[in-house]
Amino acid sequence: MDRLLAAAHEAIARCRSIAECTEEPGFTTRSFLSEPMQQVHGLLAGWMQHAGMDVCTDGVGNIRGCYKKGVKSDRRLFIGSHLDTVPRAGAYDGVLGVVLGVSLIQLLDHRPLNFAIEVIGFSEEEGLRFGSPFIGSRAFVGAIDDELLDRCDPKGISVRNAIHEFGLDTSRILEARAQQNALGYVEFHIEQGPVLEALGHRLAIVEAIVGQGRFLTTFTGKANHAGTTPMHLRHDALVGAAEWITAVEARSRRVPGLVATVGCVSVEPGAANVIPGSVAATLDVRHAEDSIRKAEASALLNDAESISTRRGLSFRWEARLDQPAAAMDPSLMQVLEQAVIEAGEPVNRMVSGAGHDAMIIAGYMPSAMLFIRSPGGVSHHASETVLVDDVAAALKVGLRFIEGIEARHE
Amino acid sequence: MDRLLAAAHEAIARCRSIAECTEEPGFTTRSFLSEPMQQVHGLLAGWMQHAGMDVCTDGVGNIRGCYKKGVKSDRRLFIGSHLDTVPRAGAYDGVLGVVLGVSLIQLLDHRPLNFAIEVIGFSEEEGLRFGSPFIGSRAFVGAIDDELLDRCDPKGISVRNAIHEFGLDTSRILEARAQQNALGYVEFHIEQGPVLEALGHRLAIVEAIVGQGRFLTTFTGKANHAGTTPMHLRHDALVGAAEWITAVEARSRRVPGLVATVGCVSVEPGAANVIPGSVAATLDVRHAEDSIRKAEASALLNDAESISTRRGLSFRWEARLDQPAAAMDPSLMQVLEQAVIEAGEPVNRMVSGAGHDAMIIAGYMPSAMLFIRSPGGVSHHASETVLVDDVAAALKVGLRFIEGIEARHE
Repeated sequence: MDRLLAAAHEAIARCRSIAECTEEPGFTTRSFLSEPMQQVHGLLAGWMQHAGMDVCTDGVGNIRGCYKKGVKSDRRLFIGSHLDTVPRAGAYDGVLGVVLGVSLIQLLDHRPLNFAIEVIGFSEEEGLRFGSPFIGSRAFVGAIDDELLDRCDPKGISVRNAIHEFGLDTSRILEARAQQNALGYVEFHIEQGPVLEALGHRLAIVEAIVGQGRFLTTFTGKANHAGTTPMHLRHDALVGAAEWITAVEARSRRVPGLVATVGCVSVEPGAANVIPGSVAATLDVRHAEDSIRKAEASALLNDAESISTRRGLSFRWEARLDQPAAAMDPSLMQVLEQAVIEAGEPVNRMVSGAGHDAMIIAGYMPSAMLFIRSPGGVSHHASETVLVDDVAAALKVGLRFIEGIEARHE
Repeated sequence: MDRLLAAAHEAIARCRSIAECTEEPGFTTRSFLSEPMQQVHGLLAGWMQHAGMDVCTDGVGNIRGCYKKGVKSDRRLFIGSHLDTVPRAGAYDGVLGVVLGVSLIQLLDHRPLNFAIEVIGFSEEEGLRFGSPFIGSRAFVGAIDDELLDRCDPKGISVRNAIHEFGLDTSRILEARAQQNALGYVEFHIEQGPVLEALGHRLAIVEAIVGQGRFLTTFTGKANHAGTTPMHLRHDALVGAAEWITAVEARSRRVPGLVATVGCVSVEPGAANVIPGSVAATLDVRHAEDSIRKAEASALLNDAESISTRRGLSFRWEARLDQPAAAMDPSLMQVLEQAVIEAGEPVNRMVSGAGHDAMIIAGYMPSAMLFIRSPGGVSHHASETVLVDDVAAALKVGLRFIEGIEARHE
């Protein structure tokens, strides 16, 4: 068997082993600094050492394996992704990117390089335990503060105490920060969407990670008896919200690259025989251009306002998140594109609609991302998968990418 | 002060005293055969005896006061409504009809009649405790079976045991059944809607109680990542449901007398950053003509079907309730209309959009209902109220109605 295909099979098997490390038997649920995360670290440390890496866990619980065979300078490339999961997750989101980093070092087969490569498995990206995402990569770029350390999980355990209970020393969090003169950061990640599948391609270079606005909206009308209130005397908050939800879809379809979603709706009082008096609905708006995203979000909220006024409802909203878009590094993207071409794969550039660690790191060092096709576009679910040939192609691109970085620093 | 106005003030004060009898301090919540229902019976028994009535509690917990001064025949008129409440209710829904029955007897001032009047306070109408409404009036018409008696509340107490714990004998439930040759049943009730207020009138004669269909619908699409799934590749169950909810409103506005309501919506998985994969929504459809109601309900479900097909969603529904409309008795309505005219009030005839005990009793004996204006159309809420002049007008109509029945049986 081709050695890349064999490495791809091994990487998939490793992801599946890691998926067995879970807080919830029968599913894969693994939060920040949990018991099963210790098991994941045990597995990765073994594979990393076998590949010739020095392994440690930093002050925020990121596992870090460094390969520096023959390295005389302090030049360092980082390859990483995250090891925590959403509830009842699949096996590949995040984990694949860490495992592929180890596979690439293994494929180097102890060959000396003119720079170090550090593979990093971030301890936290999804925001599950503390409601605050990217804790691992925020420590990596030195953006952890006391407010975050004091934040508590639903059991009342603070980030600080969770780190302590995991056997780590919070005073060493500052040491988790990467050196400033790094060569860059590259992240391999499943696409988590249907775009590559629709194109029939395996891989894509991420140009930017979209910015994201999140809002909580409330439509307030008047709850009343569903039998005794004629249609023309109603102020039904749900019909107003429904009219708006269809308008959100219509506007988003008209603006290229815009996605807007109402994902959560809660109706009060919520009885079959009572006209809804109020409806709370979330709005998630994303676009690669922050100015377009903000203008469209305003337009959507204005739509809600005018629908409400026409219907005699009141409308209010509050912003919950305003995350700017993050562009990937043009120079690192060029090395990645050359690697894709040399690997014989078609060149796709796309925008990531999901947030990733690279989004945090891009502001600190040159960053790049490679997407791997998600069959069925499925992610955040046990049926999330990858194709072995796609993983082999990613490894091929990864090796060419390392060679490209080598060539640039000869 | 005018004696009707004084009686109206007293009736309102009595309703407010009854509202103090509650399972939930600070609110009025009083379920079937509860501890506070014993207190209500104590209050009513005192007022009934004072008015010259013989009082008993039947086998299903209905309190019954009979006024038969000078009566030689077995002719009997029933006046009643219910004494249980929805959670956190107002003071007048149901209760006012029982209290006004007592007030009318009191206003007769021990005058002999040529028929008996029995005032009945039904023990259960709202369906709160056992999820099955009209237990009091069903016993009154002999429609209680073992299936109902074995039904349990959330604590696992059966109707049978609840009756026993209230100090009653289930073997006497059959005796709760009214005599077949009754003169009829009349119920005074707050409108619980905004129609009389919009007309600027105090009272209305109910012609019919609407039939009601209730459905549970489910729209199923595909849950997916809100960032990575472009608009044109989505199968968003919520947008489909939203389009349908606006269509439900549009169709209902076109058909006179039709009301249709989506009151309860539940979205899965229900996260701000996940495209909704499925939506469950209730549909409540009411009309005074069963054939129109059924045809429109079918049309609404067909609308959902075609919206779903166009959007690549699947749709299914199940019927949860199919309650036929109940017409009031034309002859008794005529006596009531004459009484309204003699009382100097404008004649309104309207349909009741809510269910009432009269709906159950109309199939057993001639029945009629008088609606009293609900300020603001508010009901099932602590702010439910009545105007004292409206209550005085209802008492005036009630006295004329009793005289009308007397005249018919001289």
